[in-house]
Amino acid sequence: MASGLARKYEINADMGEGFGRWKMGPDEELMPYIDAANIACGYHAGDPTIMLKTVRLCKKHGVKAGAHPGLQDMFGFGRRKIEIDPKDMYAMVLYQVGALKAILNSEGVELSHIKPHGELFFYMQRDETIMRAVLEACATFGDNIPVFASQNATQEAMCKELGIPFQGEVYVDIDYSPEGKLIPVAQSKVATPELCYERALSASLKDEGKDNSGGIFSFGFAGKPFSICVHSDHPTVLQNVTGVRKAVNEANRQRFPTASD
Amino acid sequence: MASGLARKYEINADMGEGFGRWKMGPDEELMPYIDAANIACGYHAGDPTIMLKTVRLCKKHGVKAGAHPGLQDMFGFGRRKIEIDPKDMYAMVLYQVGALKAILNSEGVELSHIKPHGELFFYMQRDETIMRAVLEACATFGDNIPVFASQNATQEAMCKELGIPFQGEVYVDIDYSPEGKLIPVAQSKVATPELCYERALSASLKDEGKDNSGGIFSFGFAGKPFSICVHSDHPTVLQNVTGVRKAVNEANRQRFPTASD
Amino acid sequence: MASGLARKYEINADMGEGFGRWKMGPDEELMPYIDAANIACGYHAGDPTIMLKTVRLCKKHGVKAGAHPGLQDMFGFGRRKIEIDPKDMYAMVLYQVGALKAILNSEGVELSHIKPHGELFFYMQRDETIMRAVLEACATFGDNIPVFASQNATQEAMCKELGIPFQGEVYVDIDYSPEGKLIPVAQSKVATPELCYERALSASLKDEGKDNSGGIFSFGFAGKPFSICVHSDHPTVLQNVTGVRKAVNEANRQRFPTASD
Amino acid sequence: MASGLARKYEINADMGEGFGRWKMGPDEELMPYIDAANIACGYHAGDPTIMLKTVRLCKKHGVKAGAHPGLQDMFGFGRRKIEIDPKDMYAMVLYQVGALKAILNSEGVELSHIKPHGELFFYMQRDETIMRAVLEACATFGDNIPVFASQNATQEAMCKELGIPFQGEVYVDIDYSPEGKLIPVAQSKVATPELCYERALSASLKDEGKDNSGGIFSFGFAGKPFSICVHSDHPTVLQNVTGVRKAVNEANRQRFPTASD
Repeated sequence: MASGLARKYEINADMGEGFGRWKMGPDEELMPYIDAANIACGYHAGDPTIMLKTVRLCKKHGVKAGAHPGLQDMFGFGRRKIEIDPKDMYAMVLYQVGALKAILNSEGVELSHIKPHGELFFYMQRDETIMRAVLEACATFGDNIPVFASQNATQEAMCKELGIPFQGEVYVDIDYSPEGKLIPVAQSKVATPELCYERALSASLKDEGKDNSGGIFSFGFAGKPFSICVHSDHPTVLQNVTGVRKAVNEANRQRFPTASD
Repeated sequence: MASGLARKYEINADMGEGFGRWKMGPDEELMPYIDAANIACGYHAGDPTIMLKTVRLCKKHGVKAGAHPGLQDMFGFGRRKIEIDPKDMYAMVLYQVGALKAILNSEGVELSHIKPHGELFFYMQRDETIMRAVLEACATFGDNIPVFASQNATQEAMCKELGIPFQGEVYVDIDYSPEGKLIPVAQSKVATPELCYERALSASLKDEGKDNSGGIFSFGFAGKPFSICVHSDHPTVLQNVTGVRKAVNEANRQRFPTASD
Repeated sequence: MASGLARKYEINADMGEGFGRWKMGPDEELMPYIDAANIACGYHAGDPTIMLKTVRLCKKHGVKAGAHPGLQDMFGFGRRKIEIDPKDMYAMVLYQVGALKAILNSEGVELSHIKPHGELFFYMQRDETIMRAVLEACATFGDNIPVFASQNATQEAMCKELGIPFQGEVYVDIDYSPEGKLIPVAQSKVATPELCYERALSASLKDEGKDNSGGIFSFGFAGKPFSICVHSDHPTVLQNVTGVRKAVNEANRQRFPTASD
Repeated sequence: MASGLARKYEINADMGEGFGRWKMGPDEELMPYIDAANIACGYHAGDPTIMLKTVRLCKKHGVKAGAHPGLQDMFGFGRRKIEIDPKDMYAMVLYQVGALKAILNSEGVELSHIKPHGELFFYMQRDETIMRAVLEACATFGDNIPVFASQNATQEAMCKELGIPFQGEVYVDIDYSPEGKLIPVAQSKVATPELCYERALSASLKDEGKDNSGGIFSFGFAGKPFSICVHSDHPTVLQNVTGVRKAVNEANRQRFPTASD
């Protein structure tokens, strides 16, 4: 199978983040606008039934289905710091992604990518033994399954060492700091479809972003296609995603006119 | 890959039924005596780290590694009746077995079989929609993965319909009622290595058991090899298993002298 | 302290049924319209932080705060049948109500009543050993804490035997069957504010209800005040409750003009 | 009611740290040797049924029953670092201690003390907002409920400010560092009944301990009685506790010959 790396600009979003009777995010409405879904695996959100339902939605909409493993923390939605033994973390990622993969298999859908959720993502950036534990677990799912992350030289190098693809990501519905850090929603400028459109177009066609102090920075993709993440729990995600979709379609027509999905 | 069905008499036992710091059963000591391990998948017992440790034990001892999915009930150890929507049950079996399979893959070990745990086993016997949900989930793991169960015509027929092997099982450390039902440990005669030896030999060489009122019954295996389950949480399991092992070895020498593992 | 029994017609609703980041029901908007809140205790829904927040809402709005213990089943929202040892059930009710009571104490608010949630309520109706286990646990919180339930002679008698008050309840946003059973929302007539108003007025002033085949039945309150439960997870609860409130206010002016809260 | 502070030297131990079918520690055998039990409250270990059973054991043996709240972490047994919002922590302590208090009330036993478990204890030492959140929650249970901790000036002062007693503790089955820190079991000298006896006698009669580099230090109790904690999950706790009991009895005869329990 070909690598799951993006062959043109794409949009990804977190999906299946309800639990039992509790809902989170307009999954069904969002599906037509995105290219790849990051499916919660029951540790920070999601349950087997929601996972299966989300996989079926992906299949129906031709959306790539990836795993979104997280810390075991339903109460904190996988966003609290928890000290985890790297050996436990390795096994927990195998567990979650394996659970999703079986559900995908049952529907004849391939695992497309893996994107660590919330605090697990930040934990990896802070702690190289955790980064290695997570990536080693990811590597067991095959050398064609990319791991998604914002540009990060250490993680990119470790993916290379482990023989797995690295998929760079960009955010356009929250701000970046001058240091290149993501700014939480509450402190970010309010995202509008227009702003999302402009940012997505600038990132894809000029490889440029504007930080929250007005400075211009380069994403460093050097012409490679990347994935743009939209926050599915933003109250206005359904508006914002239309702006991102428009930009991505335009950029793809210019840059990757012949790329298949 | 060849079918995971037993090609000679075998011994299976539940393994990896601790949780976090809590232990259950002498897994390490029992491994040298058994042929197949039923590994808890985190719903009634077990956690990813224990699952990985148990898979490594299986690998070290050349023991076949199967999945032991259960009801989501740590408090009740998967032994309480819970009403479950068959659609949920289907997804929960995919989830648990898939999680184990990824852990097996990470160690280069194949999934050998699936054995529903405790109340999930009984639920299937009572409710055909649940039986079908579980077996359909099992079938997605391939047509060479047998599902373990005591002889049961309905389940055997449904396995056949779904194209998956059925692996018959026998118990020798608890009693059978005249109706062929398993008697709980507390109401069963105390199992000794000698009793276990005799029962195992009688089952394998004569296809016969003795119920708790003294009646003789036929297991109905008609010469086919089967698996004998020992209860790993019996306080005297390490003694009892030596009796079963002796009988199984003797019976295999007589009946299946050339069978490989 | 005086008994927590209603001294005039009242409205109660389930509250605090979110979990972590997940929401359920418009608690804040509903508070001004109700007299008593049934606060989830962390077993079927709710968590300590939500419980505390809900208690503070009750305090702010002068709403009585009761415990809403349930089965330990977040995935099933306490609505699935689970077989529970009555000794476990007894301890689980102590645990949940005790947890809420400490949170109430921390805010200087008294525990007003106990209302078993969902399947725990139905379990009590089906199984007298469970009913006794729950009511014995309730009785340890004092002889002035009523237990809420639809009219049920067995439960009323058992409350009397245990020395605790029984608080009868009526539903006006779902249908009753001719046998006096509650009909699930999906099979009930769509509730409107007008229908809720009429039903509430008929129940309070005439002691009469109309079942879903058109028959008239008597609630049997014989002039005693009762509590009317509105479903806080109905999509139109905020409209419906205005109809109930109007009816309850009118009925109280006629029947209990001098009753304090 | 009189303060729950020790009026003579006492022994305390963690109790009720099983979960469902899983056991931890020889609770029943240990009860005759101790004065106070720290009962797990269902967050790091324990469940309502085990809590009730442990309360009944306390009652039978005349052992004081205290609450042992912890972080919500069954997998990590409350020993992993978890980042918790102080407002959540406050509510979680209310929840756990309240749950135990109701179970105590049902048996007519008073809540004697509160001892934060494992990482919650260490979290309080590291983070004053968490210390305050925990102690404010403890204070809602009355001004006669002491909070147990190793000597700690900040915590002692905060207890005083909040109007609750502080109960100093000593460990004799693990080592102290020269800085007064507790050394984990694995790095501590092997505890024997003789060593425990000597250390307990030295602490009580001379207010002195010996650190793991041989230095002598003063506990600073200035003649006040304190509580000695024995680790109920030590494999040799039943031997060690006999040494501690002997020392405590001797010291009490000398120092507090007339103190009641």
